[in-house]
Amino acid sequence: MKEALRSGPVAKILVARGVQGDNVDDILSLAKEKKVQFIWVDRKKLDLLTSRGNHQGVAAYIAPLGYVDYRDLITKAVAAPLPGISLIFLDGIQDPHNLGSIIRSAVYFGVQGVVIPKWRSASLTGAVMRSSAGAAGYIGIAQVSNLATILESAKDKGLWLIGADMEGNDVKKADIPKPCALVLGAEGMGLHRLVREKCDYLVGVKGFAKQSGVDSLNVGVATGILLHQLTN
Amino acid sequence: MKEALRSGPVAKILVARGVQGDNVDDILSLAKEKKVQFIWVDRKKLDLLTSRGNHQGVAAYIAPLGYVDYRDLITKAVAAPLPGISLIFLDGIQDPHNLGSIIRSAVYFGVQGVVIPKWRSASLTGAVMRSSAGAAGYIGIAQVSNLATILESAKDKGLWLIGADMEGNDVKKADIPKPCALVLGAEGMGLHRLVREKCDYLVGVKGFAKQSGVDSLNVGVATGILLHQLTN
Repeated sequence: MKEALRSGPVAKILVARGVQGDNVDDILSLAKEKKVQFIWVDRKKLDLLTSRGNHQGVAAYIAPLGYVDYRDLITKAVAAPLPGISLIFLDGIQDPHNLGSIIRSAVYFGVQGVVIPKWRSASLTGAVMRSSAGAAGYIGIAQVSNLATILESAKDKGLWLIGADMEGNDVKKADIPKPCALVLGAEGMGLHRLVREKCDYLVGVKGFAKQSGVDSLNVGVATGILLHQLTN
Repeated sequence: MKEALRSGPVAKILVARGVQGDNVDDILSLAKEKKVQFIWVDRKKLDLLTSRGNHQGVAAYIAPLGYVDYRDLITKAVAAPLPGISLIFLDGIQDPHNLGSIIRSAVYFGVQGVVIPKWRSASLTGAVMRSSAGAAGYIGIAQVSNLATILESAKDKGLWLIGADMEGNDVKKADIPKPCALVLGAEGMGLHRLVREKCDYLVGVKGFAKQSGVDSLNVGVATGILLHQLTN
């Protein structure tokens, strides 16, 4: 909530009558500072408005975030290479929780933009905003129709594409040229063949798959590990 | 689903009539191999049984997983030190998604057990099992009443306690003695003071908080990064 207030997309705040606590005080003073309207309502109204009554006494109306143009993201990434990852391309993340946590990690590690497909992908909803802990307001997010074509054009402009693939080289040993972008596949699916073929390098996170019986990580966790490892 | 079938806790499988695909074929042949009963039902029945109709044509009844004794986990961790993290202590993770993804990462990186508090913490539910992608069946999970007391006794037995704290030392530069356990706080709260004081070291994941406006990671992502970095 506080992150969302700081980064801008909160249109209005609803506060349950009688709710108390430092957290609520902080939110209200931040709302005043940011000139965001707040309204006192019955707790029951909040229960109704929020799914599963999971609100701790405060809820916000989030203004829909606008998407940016993917061409601007690519131009900026190439013009001023970062020491870490400049962009993230997501090949169809389905779960809003995962998209939110990926966006949060991206902002934390200084990534400039996230590109998501228009179809078969979670989009920028309130659930994503919430799972990102407000981070979605701090980063450029672009929606594109054909990811493979856009990856091709990003490569032509000089961006190195690093695909995440459990069979790829150990990311701990990877030496990646810059500017670069990380390309991630959907939950349980990995990268589509067409997308994988565009990648210059494939990197993976080594674990103890054979001993443990679990051969993959949550995609949000894998993204966080790759970003951490590839960020200086 | 496949991980849950392999690791054991599936009691019965429901399959929607008319559902097709390699994934379903794999699940059915695995169910036959594991002698797990499966029943064909109307898709509508699956919609009703699964929250939000999110089932892809197959659902499973999961047998409740048993908890193990925390003393056995500690004894084993001390008797045979691992090169990485032996145990994880969770100081009150609330979100089943996060608990599931932490358990999945723990198994992936060879951790032997996870200790969770009895109160103010998500427990081993179907949602956690699902978010763990079945990994919860591969690892010992213990529930305890008083985490701080048990941390003290684990230390006395020779386990090093590594607390996760964003203000801690950069995990990339950490040199941690073994056998050791990772101690993690709740979402948005971090470690309680009493728990933090028991820790021998505090480690954090360095990002670009000041520039980015986002000063923390999802707790499941942070756990994954710490496990990856501290596992040889």
